Amino acid sequence: MSLTVVGSIAFDAVKTPFGERERMLGGAAVHFSLAASFFTEVRPVGPVGDDFGADEFAVLERRGILTDGIEQVAGGQSFFWRGRYDFDLNVAHTEDTQLGVFAEFEPKLSAAAQAADTLFLANIQPDLQRQVRAQCGAARFSGLDSMNLWIETAGDSLRAAIAEVDCLVVNDAEIRQLTGESNLARAARAVMEWGPRAVIAKQGEYGAALFTADGFFALPGFPLEEVRDPTGAGDSFAGGFFGYLDGQGGDLDEAHLRRAMGYGTVLASFNVEEFGTERVSRLSREEIDARFEALRRMTQFDAPSAL
Amino acid sequence: MSLTVVGSIAFDAVKTPFGERERMLGGAAVHFSLAASFFTEVRPVGPVGDDFGADEFAVLERRGILTDGIEQVAGGQSFFWRGRYDFDLNVAHTEDTQLGVFAEFEPKLSAAAQAADTLFLANIQPDLQRQVRAQCGAARFSGLDSMNLWIETAGDSLRAAIAEVDCLVVNDAEIRQLTGESNLARAARAVMEWGPRAVIAKQGEYGAALFTADGFFALPGFPLEEVRDPTGAGDSFAGGFFGYLDGQGGDLDEAHLRRAMGYGTVLASFNVEEFGTERVSRLSREEIDARFEALRRMTQFDAPSAL
Repeated sequence: MSLTVVGSIAFDAVKTPFGERERMLGGAAVHFSLAASFFTEVRPVGPVGDDFGADEFAVLERRGILTDGIEQVAGGQSFFWRGRYDFDLNVAHTEDTQLGVFAEFEPKLSAAAQAADTLFLANIQPDLQRQVRAQCGAARFSGLDSMNLWIETAGDSLRAAIAEVDCLVVNDAEIRQLTGESNLARAARAVMEWGPRAVIAKQGEYGAALFTADGFFALPGFPLEEVRDPTGAGDSFAGGFFGYLDGQGGDLDEAHLRRAMGYGTVLASFNVEEFGTERVSRLSREEIDARFEALRRMTQFDAPSAL
Repeated sequence: MSLTVVGSIAFDAVKTPFGERERMLGGAAVHFSLAASFFTEVRPVGPVGDDFGADEFAVLERRGILTDGIEQVAGGQSFFWRGRYDFDLNVAHTEDTQLGVFAEFEPKLSAAAQAADTLFLANIQPDLQRQVRAQCGAARFSGLDSMNLWIETAGDSLRAAIAEVDCLVVNDAEIRQLTGESNLARAARAVMEWGPRAVIAKQGEYGAALFTADGFFALPGFPLEEVRDPTGAGDSFAGGFFGYLDGQGGDLDEAHLRRAMGYGTVLASFNVEEFGTERVSRLSREEIDARFEALRRMTQFDAPSAL
């Protein structure tokens, strides 16, 4: 099985109450790929500038990530984001965004990238997401993330893009904004009427909820006493979720989807323990499985009749 | 086993996007008692005015609630709250509060109320909570709710009151505010160092989390497509939680605490489906158990090795 993800490959400057980094590897496709790399073969697709060097490629390659879809644009600058979090780590304050080479990005995927069994369209302009989706006809399972900017400025394109994927993965507030429906369960059902068979509502520290045609499943965020930088948590969640499913051969029954929610939660929790990619890039599968089991123990309860 | 709850017994005026009621039975001790009544013998304690009549007593008595702790003050007016919710049902906008007979409340519990095995101190002034706690020496398990008003105006009293109970049950933002600690897991641990052996963080539609000395457990809110009035959800949660535990003979091991979280979640979910006490006052134990089992199915997942 193989997984293609398209999205930002970037440098981030981040300040939180617990530290700061002036320039570190980041971007949705990077966080997604690192998380997914524990489960399957993953290929990030996107442009970078000359400033993206051997050190950055090495972080990805050490995790076995296929980097042949990363297009280095001569004379260009990589996507750059500068943000700040105050004590409420659920809210990112963007201070600067420089699209760099992303401003001219026209996705032309290689044959290998197009042949992926699983496709994830990280948060980029929805027309670009649709171009990529159209090139990946072999994908048996596809997902899409987005943000309030595109809901507000490209709503029609975004709805068309959503209609073409199997699974929408966005923040719960964005599901409400997308549908104009304040009740989350109704909003998720409205999205499923557009096409997707699954909707994941990311809820920050509260975890994530999965809506399917005949099911609902939710997990809390893994409780952590040290959270240093939430940047990339949602992308790490998606990487764990889609990575696990692809690694399982694409079996999408309810039991697999729930386990994938667990792996997504675990990868997101490791991601936020340190800045940027620092924690996930030196993570082990054993640590992941131990935390998965801990999460399972934290969420199980018996029926009274089981006494 | 028996359960005493002290708190407001009130009339509420509530407006939400889904309807309004100009005057209906409400108050923390009322919502708590109705929820707990499905599991054990519960006795609400608090003052009411002449305006609290046979109809209001009948709602309680039909559920087998012991009303001998409700003190009718001649010439007095019952506690009254007027509030409004907009589409974000997590936020109550208080428009009027009239303490009425609560302004002069000096708790003097009957021998029967004092003999309770389980005690819940709903949200009232913390010195009053301490007076009640001191009268209930027989309680083997005690809980306390509070609010930002008391954190800000009576913080020392509140901390003393918390130190004297087994279980704090407040909103997650209040746990942070109480302790000055933004990380919820650390904040809960700080509270446990004051005395309680358990801390429940209520999280509105996101559910609730239970922190104990060596455990963490969390449940999502039960997903509902119809939420009409969230007033009393937290008190219904507490009523289900403490009611179930008391009804089980006060066994407080981890398995019982988790099941109690499940019943709390279920009672809160029924409470918000309609205005005030309308839904819970005609609820059946069969409906509760069916939703408890549905909640259990929505939160369980297997380890990959179970495949």
